[in-house]
Amino acid sequence: MSGSSINSERLLGHLRELGDIGRDADGRLVRLAASDNEKLGRDRVSSWMRDAGLEVAVDRIGNILGIWKPAHGTVVADTPLMLGSHIDTVINAGIYDGCYGVLSGLEVIETLNSEGFVPVRPIVVCAFTNEEGVRYAPDMMGSLVYAGGLNVDEALATVGTDGTVLGQELARIGYAGRHEPGFLKPHAYIELHIEQGPVLEREGIPVGAVENLQGISWQRVTIEGDANHAGTTPISMRRDAGLAAARVITFLRARAEASNTAMVATVGCMTFEPNAINVIPSKATFTVDLRDPDDDRLQAEEAALARFLKTVATQEQVLITTERLARFQPVTFDRDIVALVERAATARDLKSRRMTSGAGHDAQMIATIAPSAMIFVPSIGGISHNPKEFTRDADLVAGANILLDVVRELTSSKQ
Amino acid sequence: MSGSSINSERLLGHLRELGDIGRDADGRLVRLAASDNEKLGRDRVSSWMRDAGLEVAVDRIGNILGIWKPAHGTVVADTPLMLGSHIDTVINAGIYDGCYGVLSGLEVIETLNSEGFVPVRPIVVCAFTNEEGVRYAPDMMGSLVYAGGLNVDEALATVGTDGTVLGQELARIGYAGRHEPGFLKPHAYIELHIEQGPVLEREGIPVGAVENLQGISWQRVTIEGDANHAGTTPISMRRDAGLAAARVITFLRARAEASNTAMVATVGCMTFEPNAINVIPSKATFTVDLRDPDDDRLQAEEAALARFLKTVATQEQVLITTERLARFQPVTFDRDIVALVERAATARDLKSRRMTSGAGHDAQMIATIAPSAMIFVPSIGGISHNPKEFTRDADLVAGANILLDVVRELTSSKQ
Repeated sequence: MSGSSINSERLLGHLRELGDIGRDADGRLVRLAASDNEKLGRDRVSSWMRDAGLEVAVDRIGNILGIWKPAHGTVVADTPLMLGSHIDTVINAGIYDGCYGVLSGLEVIETLNSEGFVPVRPIVVCAFTNEEGVRYAPDMMGSLVYAGGLNVDEALATVGTDGTVLGQELARIGYAGRHEPGFLKPHAYIELHIEQGPVLEREGIPVGAVENLQGISWQRVTIEGDANHAGTTPISMRRDAGLAAARVITFLRARAEASNTAMVATVGCMTFEPNAINVIPSKATFTVDLRDPDDDRLQAEEAALARFLKTVATQEQVLITTERLARFQPVTFDRDIVALVERAATARDLKSRRMTSGAGHDAQMIATIAPSAMIFVPSIGGISHNPKEFTRDADLVAGANILLDVVRELTSSKQ
Repeated sequence: MSGSSINSERLLGHLRELGDIGRDADGRLVRLAASDNEKLGRDRVSSWMRDAGLEVAVDRIGNILGIWKPAHGTVVADTPLMLGSHIDTVINAGIYDGCYGVLSGLEVIETLNSEGFVPVRPIVVCAFTNEEGVRYAPDMMGSLVYAGGLNVDEALATVGTDGTVLGQELARIGYAGRHEPGFLKPHAYIELHIEQGPVLEREGIPVGAVENLQGISWQRVTIEGDANHAGTTPISMRRDAGLAAARVITFLRARAEASNTAMVATVGCMTFEPNAINVIPSKATFTVDLRDPDDDRLQAEEAALARFLKTVATQEQVLITTERLARFQPVTFDRDIVALVERAATARDLKSRRMTSGAGHDAQMIATIAPSAMIFVPSIGGISHNPKEFTRDADLVAGANILLDVVRELTSSKQ
């Protein structure tokens, strides 16, 4: 299946160059969506696309599409194979998250072009707007709008954490395009990304064939008890909201450990009131993040939590209320593309494993309008959203070569 | 043992009158130690003492002593029986905490005086400075200094939360007395107080014969793990500081429930970092408040916690450090006075029970220099340090009558 390889020097050079754009006074990488810093990144990526002979199109939500329709060949189908990810970052980011997928997509096109390869359909590389959601909510906004999951005018009216309006900011930086989002319906979509988790590194496997993406259930749980004196209130007379919260945390962990599936449960936020050393907590507020690639199982976990909260409310004599903060369905990626990724790895003598994406990605949005899949490469220590985010050059190059092979396969014959 | 009763109208009137002194613009009772508001309360109580024929003496730490040496009788012993408590309050306090003990002491003296009773030793009622410790640390400062546990000059140099110096404030409000603290060594000390806990009310018992006061162990526990992604990090690869903290909370509760003793354990403060919904907590910081009237048991609980922290550190792959914030020895009150309180209750046909004080009181300081005990009356709902603090008039009067009987007994013959 493999024939050539990408230009590793060019890919790694682009990654580092883009990683230098948008540093603040402290040297932190901060390229928030539609900011001045991000404009600099957009300009650079657009100019690389043009240099590579791509037609650059920007849609109304600011997604940048680099479209390759080889002039010297016959393109027999209109729907393009789309590659992509995002180039906006969190505050104090690493240089790989998102950028790796966009720049690898560009690299694959440049490689195929330089080989004289003639794809049977256009190949598009897309940098989606506001994947991180730091400045404007929700995250994955550009791909969500592109897939028709959110009205573009509504999205453009989003007010940011800094009081700005996304549409005005996109116009200000020159990226309020004229195309309607979704104007090019993809034939398929492939996103190459760092894992942002520790599995591949720990297992010594360079390629992840991502077969699905976890469904996410976010809830805020509020437990109310009585703020009594820590010394004078016997244990049997307590209504301790903090203890009840602790029981929920250990319950969730016990279920996750017993499940023997990809289910994960996390309590990330916790607040006690009145938060005094000698007062029994009258109130504990915390978040529950449940994830599972199987929606039936995710629903079962939500139901089990709800039942346990009732039990705790009775046993600890506390009042428990929950609020749904977010709920995303799991996404199953296209089995044929996933299999293609595995075969491509085998052909290059690289170990691969099927895996679940625990994080959200643009691919989950595009999966609603086209067969999609993702390829993961190892993240050292599983770290991301952090300057310590790191993937070895060899792994970056290997991942881009797998993408190259899969793209060549998918555009060699009209399937 | 009982012969007469206190003047309930006078006692309740004093309590309410003092409770009206020191209200802020919002009507909240705020009589912080050595403040202008507290000066008004001190002035009123001193003037009631003088009206009752007591000699008012103020010591260098501002403790106000009302000394009754009946002029018409023979006082055969110099060391006085001391009654007392405090009249400083927390912010937004109730009207009973402390004031009830001081005003009941005064009431008992007035009653005995009006009966023509001639005690064999002086009877002193004392309002100790800064029991609450809200403005100046430590709490129970006036009694601690009186008992010789803290140097008076050091105490006077204490800088308050508002930047003031206690000694200067006492001088400013006219309560920097000339007597050395401890100038009258008590023969015995009795403190009447609201329970500040729910036990007496729940059990329908009007009188608590307080036989001991819990030892207190305060620690801050810090647990450090790794702040990884809540979606991409498998359960087996987590170092979750929040989960480890939850395990400590449930461990402490399980031990307290299994102990079948007066041991109580409370986790009142809790903080997670980075405290983000989709990030595994890298750090959990919390307090542990352990109390037990038996110091051997308290030490055993501290040791059990230390062992469990080691287990959790290993099992959850986290780093755990602890810091001691406070440690008070338990106090055992004088068995003869405790028995006297029980007999006085029986003689008045009032149910009583022996109990442990879970809160700190001036009595624990004075217990180091004289046989001491406390009498508790029910707190509705166990509430204190709150405007909802409430004790029924009948219970207030009953408690003061028990104090009257015990005082008469202790000053009827030279023991």
